[in-house]
Amino acid sequence: MTAQSLKIAVIGGGSSYTPELIEGILLRQDSLPVREICLTDIEAGKEKLEIITALTQRMVAKAKADIVVSQTLDRRKAIKGADFVMTQFRVGGLKARQRDEAIPLKYNRIGQETTGSGGFAKALRTIPVVLDICRDIEELAPNAWMLNFTNPAGLVTEAIQKYSNVKTIGLCNVPVSMQMMASEMLDCEPSALQMKYAGLNHLVWVTSAYLNGREVTKELLEKVGDGANFSMKNIFEEPWDADFLNALGVIPCPYHRYYYQTEAMLAEEQLSFKEKGSRATQVMTTEAALFELYKQASLDSKPKELEERGGAYYSDASLNLVDAIHNNRNDIHVVNVRNAGVIRALPDDAVIECSAVIGNNGATPLAVDPLPHFVESLISRVKSYEMLTVEAAVYGDKEKALLALATHPLVGDIQVAKSLLDDILEQNEDHLPQFVSH
Amino acid sequence: MTAQSLKIAVIGGGSSYTPELIEGILLRQDSLPVREICLTDIEAGKEKLEIITALTQRMVAKAKADIVVSQTLDRRKAIKGADFVMTQFRVGGLKARQRDEAIPLKYNRIGQETTGSGGFAKALRTIPVVLDICRDIEELAPNAWMLNFTNPAGLVTEAIQKYSNVKTIGLCNVPVSMQMMASEMLDCEPSALQMKYAGLNHLVWVTSAYLNGREVTKELLEKVGDGANFSMKNIFEEPWDADFLNALGVIPCPYHRYYYQTEAMLAEEQLSFKEKGSRATQVMTTEAALFELYKQASLDSKPKELEERGGAYYSDASLNLVDAIHNNRNDIHVVNVRNAGVIRALPDDAVIECSAVIGNNGATPLAVDPLPHFVESLISRVKSYEMLTVEAAVYGDKEKALLALATHPLVGDIQVAKSLLDDILEQNEDHLPQFVSH
Amino acid sequence: MTAQSLKIAVIGGGSSYTPELIEGILLRQDSLPVREICLTDIEAGKEKLEIITALTQRMVAKAKADIVVSQTLDRRKAIKGADFVMTQFRVGGLKARQRDEAIPLKYNRIGQETTGSGGFAKALRTIPVVLDICRDIEELAPNAWMLNFTNPAGLVTEAIQKYSNVKTIGLCNVPVSMQMMASEMLDCEPSALQMKYAGLNHLVWVTSAYLNGREVTKELLEKVGDGANFSMKNIFEEPWDADFLNALGVIPCPYHRYYYQTEAMLAEEQLSFKEKGSRATQVMTTEAALFELYKQASLDSKPKELEERGGAYYSDASLNLVDAIHNNRNDIHVVNVRNAGVIRALPDDAVIECSAVIGNNGATPLAVDPLPHFVESLISRVKSYEMLTVEAAVYGDKEKALLALATHPLVGDIQVAKSLLDDILEQNEDHLPQFVSH
Amino acid sequence: MTAQSLKIAVIGGGSSYTPELIEGILLRQDSLPVREICLTDIEAGKEKLEIITALTQRMVAKAKADIVVSQTLDRRKAIKGADFVMTQFRVGGLKARQRDEAIPLKYNRIGQETTGSGGFAKALRTIPVVLDICRDIEELAPNAWMLNFTNPAGLVTEAIQKYSNVKTIGLCNVPVSMQMMASEMLDCEPSALQMKYAGLNHLVWVTSAYLNGREVTKELLEKVGDGANFSMKNIFEEPWDADFLNALGVIPCPYHRYYYQTEAMLAEEQLSFKEKGSRATQVMTTEAALFELYKQASLDSKPKELEERGGAYYSDASLNLVDAIHNNRNDIHVVNVRNAGVIRALPDDAVIECSAVIGNNGATPLAVDPLPHFVESLISRVKSYEMLTVEAAVYGDKEKALLALATHPLVGDIQVAKSLLDDILEQNEDHLPQFVSH
Repeated sequence: MTAQSLKIAVIGGGSSYTPELIEGILLRQDSLPVREICLTDIEAGKEKLEIITALTQRMVAKAKADIVVSQTLDRRKAIKGADFVMTQFRVGGLKARQRDEAIPLKYNRIGQETTGSGGFAKALRTIPVVLDICRDIEELAPNAWMLNFTNPAGLVTEAIQKYSNVKTIGLCNVPVSMQMMASEMLDCEPSALQMKYAGLNHLVWVTSAYLNGREVTKELLEKVGDGANFSMKNIFEEPWDADFLNALGVIPCPYHRYYYQTEAMLAEEQLSFKEKGSRATQVMTTEAALFELYKQASLDSKPKELEERGGAYYSDASLNLVDAIHNNRNDIHVVNVRNAGVIRALPDDAVIECSAVIGNNGATPLAVDPLPHFVESLISRVKSYEMLTVEAAVYGDKEKALLALATHPLVGDIQVAKSLLDDILEQNEDHLPQFVSH
Repeated sequence: MTAQSLKIAVIGGGSSYTPELIEGILLRQDSLPVREICLTDIEAGKEKLEIITALTQRMVAKAKADIVVSQTLDRRKAIKGADFVMTQFRVGGLKARQRDEAIPLKYNRIGQETTGSGGFAKALRTIPVVLDICRDIEELAPNAWMLNFTNPAGLVTEAIQKYSNVKTIGLCNVPVSMQMMASEMLDCEPSALQMKYAGLNHLVWVTSAYLNGREVTKELLEKVGDGANFSMKNIFEEPWDADFLNALGVIPCPYHRYYYQTEAMLAEEQLSFKEKGSRATQVMTTEAALFELYKQASLDSKPKELEERGGAYYSDASLNLVDAIHNNRNDIHVVNVRNAGVIRALPDDAVIECSAVIGNNGATPLAVDPLPHFVESLISRVKSYEMLTVEAAVYGDKEKALLALATHPLVGDIQVAKSLLDDILEQNEDHLPQFVSH
Repeated sequence: MTAQSLKIAVIGGGSSYTPELIEGILLRQDSLPVREICLTDIEAGKEKLEIITALTQRMVAKAKADIVVSQTLDRRKAIKGADFVMTQFRVGGLKARQRDEAIPLKYNRIGQETTGSGGFAKALRTIPVVLDICRDIEELAPNAWMLNFTNPAGLVTEAIQKYSNVKTIGLCNVPVSMQMMASEMLDCEPSALQMKYAGLNHLVWVTSAYLNGREVTKELLEKVGDGANFSMKNIFEEPWDADFLNALGVIPCPYHRYYYQTEAMLAEEQLSFKEKGSRATQVMTTEAALFELYKQASLDSKPKELEERGGAYYSDASLNLVDAIHNNRNDIHVVNVRNAGVIRALPDDAVIECSAVIGNNGATPLAVDPLPHFVESLISRVKSYEMLTVEAAVYGDKEKALLALATHPLVGDIQVAKSLLDDILEQNEDHLPQFVSH
Repeated sequence: MTAQSLKIAVIGGGSSYTPELIEGILLRQDSLPVREICLTDIEAGKEKLEIITALTQRMVAKAKADIVVSQTLDRRKAIKGADFVMTQFRVGGLKARQRDEAIPLKYNRIGQETTGSGGFAKALRTIPVVLDICRDIEELAPNAWMLNFTNPAGLVTEAIQKYSNVKTIGLCNVPVSMQMMASEMLDCEPSALQMKYAGLNHLVWVTSAYLNGREVTKELLEKVGDGANFSMKNIFEEPWDADFLNALGVIPCPYHRYYYQTEAMLAEEQLSFKEKGSRATQVMTTEAALFELYKQASLDSKPKELEERGGAYYSDASLNLVDAIHNNRNDIHVVNVRNAGVIRALPDDAVIECSAVIGNNGATPLAVDPLPHFVESLISRVKSYEMLTVEAAVYGDKEKALLALATHPLVGDIQVAKSLLDDILEQNEDHLPQFVSH
């Protein structure tokens, strides 16, 4: 990658997260010669896009950076000639997320927007749009790297890997957040702690942790079992049982709670929904407030309030990837990448989340010793669901969609799956053209 | 196997099923030179043992068979010099089964005695006893074949394979029942229909079916989806959804309902429990009636009433194995056997249920093409539970037991698992000495 | 398979082996309702075809069998409506075999017609012709079973499996000969000895042997090491080293000598070539004598002299397959079949030679426990050669052909491989149209 | 690894290569706080050890480094408290190497000291000594890292991994030399070229090469095929065939010539042996000259003449590892490491040579996509030989040793293997105590 002048395209540029990215770019001016940022969004997001573009321009101006910031509603213009394409959009917006979170609750099922069956609906809506974008990239920026933050990130990245030729890496802020929380527990610098990750997006495990070369996996597990803070802003922090963790022997991510503490998580979701509406509804309020802030002509930096939105470390997670690729740093990051034999129970072309070396030829996963069978079988079961969902989304195959939900450990029951599916298809009708003629 | 005079030991000889075995032996006098049948049971089963022994003697006399029938409370006497050891006992009797079925219902979990968490409790009680028996066989009849019917048959057979040197095959009447039901649906002779089985005990799939060399898998699936009778006497026949079956592409066994139709199965269990008590309670009544019948000196054959008890085809299933081994028939039967690479996601030493060739060197499984990922991942998940349960049962390891339940797709939730486990350990205290000092 | 009237097509019907097949058919009249035998051959084999057809008719007449015997030079006529198609031809005839055996000797390489690089040349000539036949079968007899004896049988069967939809089983008389020799060594009935086979055609191992249920693998190995007869008529019987066999732990087939006793085998080939000409030359004499015999109008049965030709047990090996398929016997035979995971280091679609159950839906291999690594790696290396050869043969790819020879453990050296390949391509020019334009 | 004061023990400190290591240490004073270097050797190497120690002291003095240099004939003293143990000795010295190289030539087999059967003899002598050293490290420096350069490095590292608890990484200068030669061919900085390595020591392949993110594998292959310099000082540079390389598709290491160009390599070895004696004999002369140089009190740096000895880049290869471990750099180096699933046809605990991330918890291999079958099968075959050799060396098992040689692609023939083995055992009698009582 010899380009001395980088163009970054941000699809879903009107997102409230965009200032995170911009901050990350500005902080890396010395190592990343970004000269153009093009923000694009759909017609419905025009107003937000304008607010964000203006804020971005103010941020760039304040940093005295030599970067041209532009906006467009024509996605192809944004993509053309880009070196990096960032995707962070939400098909159907927060209204769709409201439905994603609400529908499953009707059937006593987890209504979470990625891990729960809300994530299933989101995948059906998102995958066709992402693949359309890939068609554009293949044509207009065939050497570009697509960094995908769009959730459910593992599923979406798998669809891109299987159904396009675009060079892509999927990423998520969960692993880096775990790194931060774990180093806080151990009272050490994050960089002193080497944790090996393997699993799927939002179902990733730390299989071993080393502090200055000494294994501390058991120590960490004990702290997690003793109630140390080990969660994300956006999910409920049900404490972990110490006996269970000890038997497990590897460290679960915060989202594992949905699988292992389903009842408490569901109860909390239902209560919270009753009291405060869905999380989407809460986010709408936060977003509205954020955009009010963003509009202020005096604001020329990322406001603190954004951090409360839940996307901690996204800035670093994403720009570190850009840096590692552009400068061929061969750093280790935890990303969503082609399995290539790392998790033996999955096909080589399944996308997994694991520690990988990132350089200018992309992400190469680190090998891991065989996972405990009870870890690998959960990963495998969820991956079955994911593979079926990708297929259902791409082909608009309703039977595959049913089988996907019946395979999901958090749905399982066929009758529930049928009702859920019908409800999802009906309420998302406008966003699921692939299912129309089937 | 050149023995011209076979001794068969029946452990749990006082079981109401024993007349099935005896009938099977008597029907095969031409090919099987059985000369001695020794029935053994524990002290508490003495009365039943005497009734069964007397009935057996009347059956043998009626058949004019040259067979000595004996009974003993000393298990070692029965085993000494045996060619075949049949196990069909229930540690704790039907009272224990009542508890197994009742406890899970308190936590809204399937209370089935094999697939449900009832089967977990049964495994904890049974495995140590079976391994004790194995010690006796290793010493007193090292060349004997142990045919294990004791449930949960897959788990118990895996424990024997891993923790003893006894030659063993596990078996169950589900596959043969599926064969019978499927041939009825297709209106053909059972022998004309070749079905390939692979999976676990009570989680076995027919991956393909051929009628006279023509594939009929899809045809069969359609019939099952159209509501053809495809169930066992002892489980509720919730109909299957045709769309789901079509997407599945392989034929589930009746017990798959617990995984895929959990809500309906649980609802039925709870209703039935409320109205009629647990299935164990119902069986107690049947058993009492059966033993009344068995006592009658005029009875000298297996009474029809036994068939309603639920063990259809047990006689054939088991004696066909004895025949195939003794006469080196190399017939194909569906049994529980060492995996040896057949199901790729499982260790070689996991016990699976599949089509196998049975001859005088035991059971050799037939290879199968890769199963669909969503089939293999369910098998894999349940096998994780089974491996943890075997380890917990052998070592009395409470943490492993907790992890086992949290891994079981029908339990999952840690809090539920903890309550269930505590309840099971407390109510089975007398039968779980291995957990005492832990 | 309900056909009550079977048609058998024999491609290469003019072969001197055909009376073997006819004898097999006539011996099985009670179980196999063969009503039509159609022999076909190419123009160049017309005279032989006529001789064989006449002999066949005399044999049928003598047996008073209700079978119509016909001959044709139009292969499609023979195939049309056939239930079984037997292939046993030699592209280029014995003259080509002479070259196959002679060329490698020039380069100090084994000149054997299957295992040696002679087999490589034969594969290049044969595979395109076999695939042409498959096109005819797909069109004219889509339900027929093709039983392939044409050497190199493993390679040819793999080509059929990968590049056609024809139902096929490959077979060879080596495994049945090993069975016969081993039972002679142990002085038992062949049927009393259960041997488990796994490997490739002419590189098959007996991984375990059981006599009446008792393992006798070590015993057999010792006898082979002590110089017991364990070879085939057509290969030199260099004795095995006892220490080596003991370390090996599994029983090699006679052809393993080419890999493990290369120098002695090569020396013998070179000496024999000098003294008596190539084996093909010797066979020509035998064949000429045989056809003289066959011409005699008084001959109405398979003459004893045929046995000395080297194809012991071909009759049984092949007709037993026809019987097992037609009558759905589910017998165990050792055949060439799709791997399906049996040998873990090979792709699922590689063709292996192993014990398999044969019924009306074809051959299902028996699973085997992991082979010793040093056994699996030799199989794997030879299979690499085979896969490359199939590809080279199908696509006429000269570079792949070079890589194939350089991969063959009996060639290896690139310079030798280049010379060999050039020589083979030049001398077989007439039979390798696929290489012309490349 | 927080030690601020490192001790390095060099076993075989009297080696002529030691100045390489010392230079590497002195060049890294800023990043590596080495405070003690202890050189140890056996009694027979006392004189050389003294010469090297004195030279080392002069080098340290010149560099004004704060490092205590000591020497001892008591290995345990050297090991006690060491942070890094470097091994670079030769059991039996160059005299043994003379025999290793000469014996195989008698049997027309490659007499190379690592890849050829010379390496087999060396492994038998070396492995028991290395494991003795490991016992000392386990006791006296349990946290030390052992960096093993002792050849055959892959075999020796596998023995350490399997039969000790010592933390170890094996390394070799071939991969780094390939990196240098390849970057020269492409006229780029070595660091701009990303090559992915996988295979075994002296049988390692570059599966892909990227220059500034663009794949250049084919380009490199063409240059190698066009005769670009791509060899090591110590092996004959037979040119590669371009057609063969093109079919291969991956880049072989210089030592692959022994497998693919056996005849030319053997011819050259035999000619060179006749004209100049074995390579060991030539090295003896070089060594004598080197030690004459080393003795000169005026010499206080690594002399240029050492480079001609053949160990290019050893200094960098080894000290870069020390640096990566001590400073937790997570750099990528190509090392010998536990397979952990990277090469699918090998056991997890086989030692492979591949790209790995090196940090303070050791080496973690990078995953690779499935290798071409013909590459994996050669690796697998050679690994079979290696596994058998390790076992033979550890247990003094003569039958396993025979099987090992018969498995080696460059020996193969049993009779040759027997003669070779007898010759090796006889001529190495003094160094193979483990074979005495067997």
